[in-house]
Amino acid sequence: LYIDVFPTADSIIPAQLAGKTALVIDVLRATSTITTALNNGAVQIYPTATIAEARRVASCFPAGTYLLGGERKGVQIPGFDLDNSPLRYKKEIVAAKTIIFTTSNGTKTIKHGKTAQTLLLAAFLNAKPAARMAWETKQDIFLLCSGTNGRFSLDDAACAGLLIEYLRQLDKRARLSDLAFTLHQLYLSHCNRLPDLLAHASHYRRLLDLNLQADIAYCLQTNICTIVPFWDGEKIIKKDGSSGE
Amino acid sequence: LYIDVFPTADSIIPAQLAGKTALVIDVLRATSTITTALNNGAVQIYPTATIAEARRVASCFPAGTYLLGGERKGVQIPGFDLDNSPLRYKKEIVAAKTIIFTTSNGTKTIKHGKTAQTLLLAAFLNAKPAARMAWETKQDIFLLCSGTNGRFSLDDAACAGLLIEYLRQLDKRARLSDLAFTLHQLYLSHCNRLPDLLAHASHYRRLLDLNLQADIAYCLQTNICTIVPFWDGEKIIKKDGSSGE
Repeated sequence: LYIDVFPTADSIIPAQLAGKTALVIDVLRATSTITTALNNGAVQIYPTATIAEARRVASCFPAGTYLLGGERKGVQIPGFDLDNSPLRYKKEIVAAKTIIFTTSNGTKTIKHGKTAQTLLLAAFLNAKPAARMAWETKQDIFLLCSGTNGRFSLDDAACAGLLIEYLRQLDKRARLSDLAFTLHQLYLSHCNRLPDLLAHASHYRRLLDLNLQADIAYCLQTNICTIVPFWDGEKIIKKDGSSGE
Repeated sequence: LYIDVFPTADSIIPAQLAGKTALVIDVLRATSTITTALNNGAVQIYPTATIAEARRVASCFPAGTYLLGGERKGVQIPGFDLDNSPLRYKKEIVAAKTIIFTTSNGTKTIKHGKTAQTLLLAAFLNAKPAARMAWETKQDIFLLCSGTNGRFSLDDAACAGLLIEYLRQLDKRARLSDLAFTLHQLYLSHCNRLPDLLAHASHYRRLLDLNLQADIAYCLQTNICTIVPFWDGEKIIKKDGSSGE
């Protein structure tokens, strides 16, 4: 098992993902929100790169069966039903619904990751089942950090470090790329004080400025969801990771 | 003071370097070798991107006044005087000479870094004077890691972490980007066992395969040179950093 990392959406070299398993990470907040929505009963998620594409996809669904969600610059898009806050994706709102979803960074990473043979989404919320499901593919694993506005982001890096820790527990002989090694070390040296670590993140500070403390506290919880979002070639559906299947 | 990092030569966004100070890092081996050559009396270094360009530049100098140095795939270029081993750049060979130099990664980083207002070269060999000289410019500082074949490289990352440590000692209030923070943490958690850390580097293992143990041991020595290589707009010359000027 070889584990490698791309640090930002733009750094992904899609050709290198062929035949590999990829885990998309956007802790604050796209992969946390998608994981939450599916965990709370949403049927499927259509990630789109642009707002126009989101509206186009929505036009294919009967009214009342879908919700438009996402953000630009961290805030809700005019005319959309939901923003990018995982706390908005409650059972009573999303159950049995299709979500059409567009964000600044996370949906771009998903798009660049589609050449992977298996594409899963991970966050702190589902880190353990996501790592296990990736490992079960028996393919080399690329962690695709979304980053923030094209730059390396500490929240995604710390989550990548945790995923690598779980993967190393599953396969003690897993080989790490230089960046995978670095992020694993970052996680190991801060695993008991994750909120302190993330307080250094520039993205974190920006979200605090937007009054999103509750979102951040929610997104830093580890393994409260058992499902793993999974790209099926057209949309994101969920796989149940609770059985360790 | 704000400190940021580009993790590879290809990730550098030249426009972001305008008005900033940049420190080029290629520990194994370009910046270690250039630092050594200037420390041992070489007059100036012309970095070139290609072998053809190196020969073109050489044709401007009288025979006997210059040496052609560098590597492709880690080994000496046919017809060149020297490879990329710092141990070859001894006083009796390089003193008073012009060096025309081309390598796979390091010279590309220098090229991409030229938009910086001040461009310095750093390695473990001159980390402390290089950090001090960068700090004295009173500009924000970008560390430009060369990486290896387009990927993040642990040797350059560790050196960046050490430079950040020195910069923080000079300015305790210096703000760090997320990647700068990560590499600083990497350095702090391994500062007493740097050779152990670098034994994880994939590039390091590749150099061991090429029987370059002596080069690696040399390049990991800290602060044995007092000079700092400096891009003057046309070539690299040295500045003496011993005075703390």
